[in-house]
Amino acid sequence: MNEADRNARHAARMARKKAAVDAAIAAATDERGLLIVLTGNGKGKSTSAFGMVARALGHGMKVGVVQFIKSRTDTGEEAFLGRQPGVEWNVTGDGFTWDTQNRAQDIATAERGWAIAARMLSDPSYQLVVLDELTYLLSYGYLDADVVLDALAQRPPMQHVVVTGRAASDALVELADTVSVIADEKHAFRAGVKAQPGIDL
Amino acid sequence: MNEADRNARHAARMARKKAAVDAAIAAATDERGLLIVLTGNGKGKSTSAFGMVARALGHGMKVGVVQFIKSRTDTGEEAFLGRQPGVEWNVTGDGFTWDTQNRAQDIATAERGWAIAARMLSDPSYQLVVLDELTYLLSYGYLDADVVLDALAQRPPMQHVVVTGRAASDALVELADTVSVIADEKHAFRAGVKAQPGIDL
Repeated sequence: MNEADRNARHAARMARKKAAVDAAIAAATDERGLLIVLTGNGKGKSTSAFGMVARALGHGMKVGVVQFIKSRTDTGEEAFLGRQPGVEWNVTGDGFTWDTQNRAQDIATAERGWAIAARMLSDPSYQLVVLDELTYLLSYGYLDADVVLDALAQRPPMQHVVVTGRAASDALVELADTVSVIADEKHAFRAGVKAQPGIDL
Repeated sequence: MNEADRNARHAARMARKKAAVDAAIAAATDERGLLIVLTGNGKGKSTSAFGMVARALGHGMKVGVVQFIKSRTDTGEEAFLGRQPGVEWNVTGDGFTWDTQNRAQDIATAERGWAIAARMLSDPSYQLVVLDELTYLLSYGYLDADVVLDALAQRPPMQHVVVTGRAASDALVELADTVSVIADEKHAFRAGVKAQPGIDL
């Protein structure tokens, strides 16, 4: 097949594909607030949530963020996104459970973080709410799953919410509109590379 | 078991876990530029790359972005991140192959985008380079895979690079330090929801 034939076949194949893609796009007409869950063990859950914060800021949206586990406030995401007009950024964590080694304290910390989240989930002025690492508090039983799921289900209809963390529960996946499961195929940390600014923090 | 016992057991278990986590962190001492590949069919590949751009800006890093497929310049990511000091943002695409339906034009477009990427990959002043949707140009054979892999392998040693797109090749995965495969468990688009500002664009 010569180059001209190859190009002509390509054009015909792509015209057919475009008709199918256009039909799918035409069928997707709803606009509403989405619940997006980013789970799995791989890198890219919180990072992706922060990418949505950046996109939202590009559209002039008001954004609320609650970081449930993280305790450090020297991260790149907070230094940059957390100080933008239109963003309310809350680092409510105490570190991981193995850092605190104190279950009662962890539960109190979880409840303080959840109070902020619950306020945002009942306020339609927040157009995007990020609940970073929320899944851990559900897995550990530090928050009541029914209370959390009810608040998510009853939030303002146009509000987008992104929940991140490993091992999202079946009930959370069921409630969500979009769920990505991020598999850890390879991670530099296991090859001896420390967490790097700009990439991991 | 009463609450005090439960808390004590938790503390002991977490102390053991912390020892293991601390040992892993102590073993990870390298600092070098990482090649991160975000692939798979789920939502969160480009978004995660943009989250790393935000993190990098929080650390005052210089960032280069090339979007290889996307043609629109009205996205939230470009409106917000693309206009930050320290960011060079290039939308080099013409849309998907089924939009252009013109293979020769797609190849010329790919080569123009790659020339920008190759310049960044040979300039150590770029501390993070995002090559968004690069994998498609390799899958289609629009760029020479050996040329691309050589440029990635020979880039400045402290430069981080993020490559996104479905179906990353085995050779690219092999070269990468961190690879996340993002599975599409559920997507609002299939339930009739259109692409939404702040989430998808």
